[in-house]
Amino acid sequence: MGKIEEMSVNAIRILAADSVQKANSGHPGLPLGCAAMAYELWANHMKHNPKNPKWVNRDRFVLSAGHGSALLYSLLHLFGYGNLSIEDLAQFRQEDSLTPGHPEYGHTVGVEATTGPLGAGMGMSVGMAMAEAHLSSIFNKEGFPIVDHYTYVLGGDGCMMEGITSEVLSLAGTLSLSKLIVFYDSNNITIEGSTDIAFTEDVEKRMQAFGFQTIIVEDGNDLEAIGKAIQEAKAETNKPSFIIVKTQIGYGCPAKQCKASAHGEPLGIENVAALKENLGWEKQDAFYVPDAVYHHYKKIAEKKAEDETTWNKLFLAYSEKYPEMKTLWQQYFDTNALTDLLNKEEFWAYADKPDATRNLSGVMINRIKDILPNFIGGSADLAPSNKTHMKDAGDFSKTNYSGRNIHYGVRELGMAAIGNGLALHGGLKTFVGTFFVFSDYVKPMARLASLMELPVTYVLTHDSIGVGEDGPTHEPIEQLAMLRAMPNFTVFRPADATETCAAWYYAITSAKTPTALVLSRQNLPQLKGASKEALKGGYVLADSNKAVPDGIIIASGSEVELAVNAKVELAKENIDVRVVSMPSVDVFEEQSDEYKESVLPKAVRGRVAVEAASDFGWGKYVGLDGAYVTMKGFGASAPAKTLFNKFGFTTENVVAVTKKVLKSN
Amino acid sequence: MGKIEEMSVNAIRILAADSVQKANSGHPGLPLGCAAMAYELWANHMKHNPKNPKWVNRDRFVLSAGHGSALLYSLLHLFGYGNLSIEDLAQFRQEDSLTPGHPEYGHTVGVEATTGPLGAGMGMSVGMAMAEAHLSSIFNKEGFPIVDHYTYVLGGDGCMMEGITSEVLSLAGTLSLSKLIVFYDSNNITIEGSTDIAFTEDVEKRMQAFGFQTIIVEDGNDLEAIGKAIQEAKAETNKPSFIIVKTQIGYGCPAKQCKASAHGEPLGIENVAALKENLGWEKQDAFYVPDAVYHHYKKIAEKKAEDETTWNKLFLAYSEKYPEMKTLWQQYFDTNALTDLLNKEEFWAYADKPDATRNLSGVMINRIKDILPNFIGGSADLAPSNKTHMKDAGDFSKTNYSGRNIHYGVRELGMAAIGNGLALHGGLKTFVGTFFVFSDYVKPMARLASLMELPVTYVLTHDSIGVGEDGPTHEPIEQLAMLRAMPNFTVFRPADATETCAAWYYAITSAKTPTALVLSRQNLPQLKGASKEALKGGYVLADSNKAVPDGIIIASGSEVELAVNAKVELAKENIDVRVVSMPSVDVFEEQSDEYKESVLPKAVRGRVAVEAASDFGWGKYVGLDGAYVTMKGFGASAPAKTLFNKFGFTTENVVAVTKKVLKSN
Repeated sequence: MGKIEEMSVNAIRILAADSVQKANSGHPGLPLGCAAMAYELWANHMKHNPKNPKWVNRDRFVLSAGHGSALLYSLLHLFGYGNLSIEDLAQFRQEDSLTPGHPEYGHTVGVEATTGPLGAGMGMSVGMAMAEAHLSSIFNKEGFPIVDHYTYVLGGDGCMMEGITSEVLSLAGTLSLSKLIVFYDSNNITIEGSTDIAFTEDVEKRMQAFGFQTIIVEDGNDLEAIGKAIQEAKAETNKPSFIIVKTQIGYGCPAKQCKASAHGEPLGIENVAALKENLGWEKQDAFYVPDAVYHHYKKIAEKKAEDETTWNKLFLAYSEKYPEMKTLWQQYFDTNALTDLLNKEEFWAYADKPDATRNLSGVMINRIKDILPNFIGGSADLAPSNKTHMKDAGDFSKTNYSGRNIHYGVRELGMAAIGNGLALHGGLKTFVGTFFVFSDYVKPMARLASLMELPVTYVLTHDSIGVGEDGPTHEPIEQLAMLRAMPNFTVFRPADATETCAAWYYAITSAKTPTALVLSRQNLPQLKGASKEALKGGYVLADSNKAVPDGIIIASGSEVELAVNAKVELAKENIDVRVVSMPSVDVFEEQSDEYKESVLPKAVRGRVAVEAASDFGWGKYVGLDGAYVTMKGFGASAPAKTLFNKFGFTTENVVAVTKKVLKSN
Repeated sequence: MGKIEEMSVNAIRILAADSVQKANSGHPGLPLGCAAMAYELWANHMKHNPKNPKWVNRDRFVLSAGHGSALLYSLLHLFGYGNLSIEDLAQFRQEDSLTPGHPEYGHTVGVEATTGPLGAGMGMSVGMAMAEAHLSSIFNKEGFPIVDHYTYVLGGDGCMMEGITSEVLSLAGTLSLSKLIVFYDSNNITIEGSTDIAFTEDVEKRMQAFGFQTIIVEDGNDLEAIGKAIQEAKAETNKPSFIIVKTQIGYGCPAKQCKASAHGEPLGIENVAALKENLGWEKQDAFYVPDAVYHHYKKIAEKKAEDETTWNKLFLAYSEKYPEMKTLWQQYFDTNALTDLLNKEEFWAYADKPDATRNLSGVMINRIKDILPNFIGGSADLAPSNKTHMKDAGDFSKTNYSGRNIHYGVRELGMAAIGNGLALHGGLKTFVGTFFVFSDYVKPMARLASLMELPVTYVLTHDSIGVGEDGPTHEPIEQLAMLRAMPNFTVFRPADATETCAAWYYAITSAKTPTALVLSRQNLPQLKGASKEALKGGYVLADSNKAVPDGIIIASGSEVELAVNAKVELAKENIDVRVVSMPSVDVFEEQSDEYKESVLPKAVRGRVAVEAASDFGWGKYVGLDGAYVTMKGFGASAPAKTLFNKFGFTTENVVAVTKKVLKSN
């Protein structure tokens, strides 16, 4: 290691240790152990331009072990990203700082993905590598490798233990994503102690089984060996690569090195001093970095910028030679001007016959596929059931990266993480699909999508006891509440074709909010009164003739029909209720107070919520005086119609409950 | 294959095909493909007594590929379990039948676990094998192998793709669970087509990497080869075994064999006829089984019963020789008479100083450990943070199965499945632990616990923005709503030591409901007014002096303190409110209407809910006229106190919101 390289590596360590110490909170172990591999990668191999972190053809780097954020912030500072200053590092983990506890996409320039939940970054990096493979197959021409970059991801033992990692790396191997390069920070230490207590598997062999090239770097501080490993990884063009780097957690800090205590707590003032002394750091001052080191990083960054200059020239020549591709490129990468779809009749057209909303969604997916060339997605081995297949759009596979139908296999959580990665990469609009009950598996990654403000769409079919014979393991009850409760996440449960169109319209025009489409397995009628008002989340589908309705029945999805039928029956007894269709509680909540009052006037206390799911969350609209026609427990296995009767989802029961409520109000 | 064996295998196929056809719904592919291995295992290797399906020392069999339930029902019928009749098979997937779409534990005699979500059965079987290992290490004496059985599990390609399977089998390898034997129904077909589209990994190699012995059976219909494989598996006493059985999905049905369409839909009347003809079945009548076949199964079942007779004698001799072990056995296996703890002062004692509820939970865990010798559990690599370590209780490891501290590694979902398996086995009380935000990962298996009515306890610490510096990826917002919405699942979020004792008391005395304990990272004061009334879920912690309070502030956990402080401040302005502590919405909901009215009188409309989480679900108590002091979005990274201020969790804000509500009511 040259002196300046050594100092540059140590600068990462020192800054990370100081950041954590100043915050008196954080994870110094990983930055100390991984500084060398990170330096070697960022300085000598990764294609990036610190002055333009959003350059489309940059290599991506994801820190899957997100708790090591201080490593990333130190790198970003030293390379001059977004002017992340030394003061920012000193504000590590403090209010409104640019250096939060875990890396946050959209918050700190140069952070490619929000990480923290272990393994998530592995999934997102696979998604990015898939995006690269797809876009390069679409755009590259002889002599014009317009899309041509690597995706690097760094994870530790925790990432390797998480099931999501097996899911996504098995798929990465299947898809031969050779431009995916995984760094495994192997230090044999976890929070509870040695990895031996819970993790003695042969990780290298597992990765080979997944179809990866594996490379071992015995000394995690050996820059040359790390560099050689990266070159080998790049040289392998048929398989993704997995570089096992043997490191020492807390490297350089005599009292902490190789100990679990190095992982997640500050080293302590004395140990930071000992670290600096041990590494031969010339000053003890907090956040001190020698000018020579800054100069060194600056020179590298300047050189890196040339990569983009070269690419810009290439892209210009490409645009001139292939103007039609330039136009296509804009369709992929520029913000979509889709709002005019609102008035396009073809988009909102439907056959006026009963149909399942999953089928109607399938029709919409195929319409959108024709409108958006960059619309790509797939299902976790349920495409025929989820109706997610895009006709004539090809299958994404190792022999056909231009295919737009992704086969995720039975890997819901991994699929959701990959969906995030596809969205993070840029250039693509994506959806993922599974049964609604399995949104339980999707949830942790949908949460990251919400946090990152990624407009991923979740196609979730088989949305209630309407599942029928498959029984309670496959019948969602509490999933609507689970997803509705999540911030910056929109759930639509449409009642018919019009509302399904609205739901898809919302999903594909959403800029910063992921959307779940919760769809029926069974046929539903087309409803008189259903309209684009569905885009307001909740609206009056069938009104009372009175200025102040006798009562209000609120329903979503398959139960709106019941509400409408109940209204007709009640009218025969001179009870004049309003029916509110509420396809999206989330969107309704965003409306003005005036609008909400106009739909649900406070004066009307006789309210009934009807939904074949948990009542949880409906109290906000039903209040202390209303009632529920909802599920009280889990479902059962029987034909769907039988179950709707069994659990009280009948016109008669809705009428009875409504009458009871109105009597007591 | 002998003639009668062949017929007996085919009987399984025929019954399964007829069941699915009659129901016009279900999955015939797996039963047809796996009939031979299932027969061989159940008839010639598995230790079980159809006449006493609950015999403690039986071998366990879990159908992880739960959609193949018709296989299991056919087996249970033919072996004479619980008198599952031919009529029951004919009622497959019908209302209230004993043969629901997926196997349901507690519903059908002989079903060891509810399965359906793929991979779950793998996790539960690892838990069962761990239970066996633990109990045998506790109870077995020289010459008295009282606990000595195998755990068999059967899964397919879907199970192997799911991440949970990697999590649990990696752990099974680490723990050298040699009495776990996994059957892999390898047929290269999934719903979307050939496994090649999404799953080309070398499964055998992966399993070897996990530390399994692997055995291949090339012909899934070769009973002898299957038998030999099982013998080899049993002979390996250092590693768990993984038997790859090459099968043909839909075997025997000419038009469906080896096709994805065999998986999840009825074969069709003509194909069922062709199946029968092709297999040489002597009659076409639905559900016809020759007497010779019934006789054959009956003989086997009678012989199997002898195993239990032998064991009963052994247990008797053991009880006589080791009376103290007999007593211990009863402590493990008999229903716990724990209710007297309600009046035990030591159980409810606490130090009157501020403390984090996670610490208080740690104290309780150690108290319970001393009371219940069969209390076993652990954390997903967060024991030091979750405070789940049991002192002097040993670590469960391959060299010490008697240890009661389980190290799950960073595998939350797998941990939760294993927890279910430990509970299903019988003899043990168990808990699992992780950060509350990672309940997102736990959820799918917690749902199965709820469905199966298993009283597993979830220790979920770091319960709000009180997490502080780790930031939004680690700060739960919507998780309370997610878990509260789930049927038969109880969430406790205690406010102090007394409520933490109550929560643990509820958890360990619960017979049929899993319990989540949602615990603070930060210190909380001991509250005047906190009491065992917490066992009612919600109670008046500090009352108004008025018969009808001016208003009600409802809070849980760390926010109860705020509510109490606000009450004091409001009193200075002659506003006299009641404070309701609501540690468990679920338990409160189970109380009588009278009790609920006494705590939250309908007449009082000025209500404020205070909880550092999503407001979702509080509307039920707050109504149309109340207000919320809750989180509107995700959290942030900063010291906890800063965050509580930032997001409005201050006495001042609660006072202000309450005053505003009271003004408008």
